[in-house]
Amino acid sequence: MAIAQRLQKLRQKLAEKELDAIFISQPENCRYLSGFTGSAGTLLISQDSAILATDFRYLEQARGQATNFEILRIKNQPAESLVELIAGRGIRKLGFEANHLCFASYHRLAEKADKQQLQLVPIEGLVDSLRAVKEEEELACLVKASQLADAAFKYIADKICPGMKEKEVAWEIEKFLRGRSSEPVPFDIIVASGPNAALPHAKPTERPLSPSEPIIVDLGAMVEGYSSDMSRTFCLGSGDETFTKVYNLILQAQLTALANLKAGMTGEQVDSLARRLIKQGGYEDAFGHGLGHGVGLATHEQPRLGPNSADILVEHMVFTIEPGVYLTGWGGVRIEDMVIVEKGRAKTLTKARK
Amino acid sequence: MAIAQRLQKLRQKLAEKELDAIFISQPENCRYLSGFTGSAGTLLISQDSAILATDFRYLEQARGQATNFEILRIKNQPAESLVELIAGRGIRKLGFEANHLCFASYHRLAEKADKQQLQLVPIEGLVDSLRAVKEEEELACLVKASQLADAAFKYIADKICPGMKEKEVAWEIEKFLRGRSSEPVPFDIIVASGPNAALPHAKPTERPLSPSEPIIVDLGAMVEGYSSDMSRTFCLGSGDETFTKVYNLILQAQLTALANLKAGMTGEQVDSLARRLIKQGGYEDAFGHGLGHGVGLATHEQPRLGPNSADILVEHMVFTIEPGVYLTGWGGVRIEDMVIVEKGRAKTLTKARK
Repeated sequence: MAIAQRLQKLRQKLAEKELDAIFISQPENCRYLSGFTGSAGTLLISQDSAILATDFRYLEQARGQATNFEILRIKNQPAESLVELIAGRGIRKLGFEANHLCFASYHRLAEKADKQQLQLVPIEGLVDSLRAVKEEEELACLVKASQLADAAFKYIADKICPGMKEKEVAWEIEKFLRGRSSEPVPFDIIVASGPNAALPHAKPTERPLSPSEPIIVDLGAMVEGYSSDMSRTFCLGSGDETFTKVYNLILQAQLTALANLKAGMTGEQVDSLARRLIKQGGYEDAFGHGLGHGVGLATHEQPRLGPNSADILVEHMVFTIEPGVYLTGWGGVRIEDMVIVEKGRAKTLTKARK
Repeated sequence: MAIAQRLQKLRQKLAEKELDAIFISQPENCRYLSGFTGSAGTLLISQDSAILATDFRYLEQARGQATNFEILRIKNQPAESLVELIAGRGIRKLGFEANHLCFASYHRLAEKADKQQLQLVPIEGLVDSLRAVKEEEELACLVKASQLADAAFKYIADKICPGMKEKEVAWEIEKFLRGRSSEPVPFDIIVASGPNAALPHAKPTERPLSPSEPIIVDLGAMVEGYSSDMSRTFCLGSGDETFTKVYNLILQAQLTALANLKAGMTGEQVDSLARRLIKQGGYEDAFGHGLGHGVGLATHEQPRLGPNSADILVEHMVFTIEPGVYLTGWGGVRIEDMVIVEKGRAKTLTKARK
């Protein structure tokens, strides 16, 4: 049902852009439009046909999952096989995903297309923009994934203590999530203590936790392919002056963004709600990443919240709000929640204590 | 030390191809050439400079890991920032990774390049071919990863019993590997029983194991970024006639390929050693994938072993030998080992009982 509606929306976009068909190669877009979860499959969608092309390894899986699609077996590279698929279908203008298809595949496709008077049209973000607005069934998965993340935080907050190693904590969290029906976690869990917390994307190390240092924990669960993503920062003892100051600043910045976000704002406008406060606090240069990102079948997807983001936030988009400050040698603070736009305002999906 | 030698080899290739510099965007190639393990970094390498460009999130990590490189912070897309990096460095002919760079990035780069009279040259498989031949330190990691995989097989062989669910078995294996210092597993572990074993890339389900059905287990460990990859097929009770027949055929095909492989052969020649026997046994159509693939920083890399593969197998390449037969409705058999070419012959790295 969901698949049929998604195809209908896509076909409407194709008509608006005067495309006869579109070639979909980005894996999450393939999954979204067809239901196929294998790692090697491409789609060709026109007004009256929907084809999934895959190789021997995934044929049976494709037949079981992509029931709205005609399944074709290919032996060569997808882009090369494509032109043969197209022959005789009256396709003259073909869109392709310019943000995913590599130059070499494009080039081979273009050589064949020329011979058939087929025009290739680069398309960016078309399916991604459909994916950014979540349907009810998708929201149910995102809510479950957020609840699992909350439960994992509660679990580790009771268990974590000085002397435990970062890696050990990360693995305890992962075991908890997997044992409670999360699919493989959507990204490597971050547990970063002391100076390591100054790296926004730190990998857990053998470093033992110490009472007075900041610890950033960033984790997510996965439910039917949908991710959650959240972070908390804390000290196991009493933090130093910097910690108190930076933590309160980041918390204030996050709460301000959450409270003042309205549907219709751009990603840049929401980002600036938090960034302004961090600038006033004197830490502008230490907040070097964007305020947040969409979450769904990919952990990072549309919309983007950050300087220069013109993405407009609308009802039923789901994204993170995660201001952070990072100080080389000392550590960092990041507070991240996942939210949905509901009745025009931000509703927090992750509930763990801040 | 390793990094310096790799850069030297790459620079020699650049000179042979009369390129002034190369732009590296493929993540494993970036790691191989620089030591940087972050997910967002690109390299620009010429005869006299080596630059790693990354964003705020990875700056500190890059400085710590890529000590042979000048680290530059970028705010825009890597390909767009690139042309600015190049200005004033006397670069006229720039290679780029055509199998990785997407059309949109290429196009934006090309627009800027035109203005600077910079010529872009698509390059395929250059760093990949360096990576295919393993150095001593890399081999040590691959051996460790193979030993972990063997140990996981021994562990699960003692534990597995009828009634356990596929997912449960996969998770037991993963816990074992992670508890014994594997990094996050390089791919989702496959445990596929009965008809599910007819899907070469099956995902573990809630299906309980039954005594007389074939079960395929495919797993790998990761050590310092290097993967292992191996499969075994077995029955928990006595298999049916088809199992005995197919298992013996696949085992024979695998052992024949292992025994007759010689350095200097192509991937197609080695593939045909096994494929010929499977064809004679009447299961040609049921062996729909290649015989194997290189393993290293990526689980699937050069060389490829399969029909149409002209890759030449040489000393110190590491790859899998994994014939398989898949019968819809019944199940499948795959036997996979990881081997290294040593003194011109295949030496098996994975030792688990077949």
